Amino acid sequence: MFIVLEGIDGAGKSTQAKLLAEWFENRGYDVVLTKEPTDTPFGKLIRRLVLTGGKEGIIDGAKISHEAEALLFAADRAEHVDKLIKPSLEAGKVVISDRYFYSSLAYQWARGLDLEWLIDLNRFAVKPDIVFLLDLPVKESMNRIRSRKVKSEFDKIFELQRRVRENYLKLAEMFPEMKIINAMDDVKTVHNQIIAIIETLLGEK
Amino acid sequence: MFIVLEGIDGAGKSTQAKLLAEWFENRGYDVVLTKEPTDTPFGKLIRRLVLTGGKEGIIDGAKISHEAEALLFAADRAEHVDKLIKPSLEAGKVVISDRYFYSSLAYQWARGLDLEWLIDLNRFAVKPDIVFLLDLPVKESMNRIRSRKVKSEFDKIFELQRRVRENYLKLAEMFPEMKIINAMDDVKTVHNQIIAIIETLLGEK
Repeated sequence: MFIVLEGIDGAGKSTQAKLLAEWFENRGYDVVLTKEPTDTPFGKLIRRLVLTGGKEGIIDGAKISHEAEALLFAADRAEHVDKLIKPSLEAGKVVISDRYFYSSLAYQWARGLDLEWLIDLNRFAVKPDIVFLLDLPVKESMNRIRSRKVKSEFDKIFELQRRVRENYLKLAEMFPEMKIINAMDDVKTVHNQIIAIIETLLGEK
Repeated sequence: MFIVLEGIDGAGKSTQAKLLAEWFENRGYDVVLTKEPTDTPFGKLIRRLVLTGGKEGIIDGAKISHEAEALLFAADRAEHVDKLIKPSLEAGKVVISDRYFYSSLAYQWARGLDLEWLIDLNRFAVKPDIVFLLDLPVKESMNRIRSRKVKSEFDKIFELQRRVRENYLKLAEMFPEMKIINAMDDVKTVHNQIIAIIETLLGEK
C-alpha cells in the first residue's frame, strides 16, 4: 500500500505521516516512512542546487529557471521511485511519503509552468493508493510556520501559499485518489479521519 | 539563427561546428559556439552525476535510473536554453550547438525510454532553424573514436552506437528541420555541403 500526504507548509503532513506509520507498525506492518525531496545525498544535492541557485554555479550566477527546477525535482523523484518506492512495494511494505509529485504540480504550476507539462514529466511515478490532502486556510498555516520563517519573507510566502492551496484543491478534482482532510482540526481528530479512510481501503483490498 | 549538429561519436560534430562558426565570423556575424551537456559548472555537475552514478550518493550506491538521467539532461538543457540560447538569439547572434535535445531522444530512446515522454520533457526547448545530422556507418565511427575508448568497452559501445544511429535516422523522418549529411566524406566536403544549405537558408531569411 502506497500512501501520500500533501498540503501547504504547516498543514501537519510530517506529524500525520509519523502517526500513520506508528498505526501500521502497531498492526504488524512493515512500514517505510519517506519524503520528498528525498533525504538521500542525491536529493540533498538537488535541494541545495535549487535553494542556492546561482551560488552552485548556474550560468552568470543567475537563479535556476523554473523549468530546470521542475526537472530536477522530477529526477530526484525518479530515483525515489526506482530505488525505494517500487522495491518497497514489491516487498509488500507499506510506503508513506511526505509529499510526492502532487507537490510538484501544486508548487510549480503556481510558478507559472504548464500543468500538462508537469504531469507529463512525472508520468513515470507509481500512482499511490491514496493521497491525503491536509487542507487549511493560508492564514492558519502562516501562524503555524511563523517561527520557521523570517518576517521579510512573509508576504511573498503568503501569496505563494495561497496559490498553492488553490492548486491543491483543483488537483483534488482531477485526481480521484486525492482525499481532502480538514487540517484545522486537532492532531488526534485529523489522525482519526485518516485512519477511518485507511480502514475502508484495507477492507477493500 | 540557431544551428545544431548531431550524430554519433566520431561523426565530426565538433570539427564541423568550429568550421561553421569561423565561416559565420568571417562574414561579420556574432557567433555563440556551445554544446551539450553544457560546459557550465551546472552541466559539469550533472555530467559527473550521470557518469559516476552511485559514487555521488545515489541510494544504495546503485546506478542512476534512465528516467532520472533523462530528467537531469533536460534540466541542464533548460538552463542552457534559458541562460544562453534564448538571450543570444534575442541579441541577434548565431547560435551553433554541438548536440541538443535530439541527442537525448536518440540516446535515451536507445536505452528503452518512451520516445513520446522524452519529447514531452524537452517541450520547453527552442526549435533550431536547422539540424545537421552527420551520419556515418557505426564501423567507421568506431574506427575514428578507437583512440578515445578502452578495448573492453567496445562491444557495448558498438551496439549502443548502432541503435543510436538508427534512432537518429528515424528522428530525421519525424523532424523536418533535420538534414542528413553524409559524414563519410572528408572534412572539407562535409563543410561545403553544410554551407550550401546555410546559404539557401540565409537567402530565405
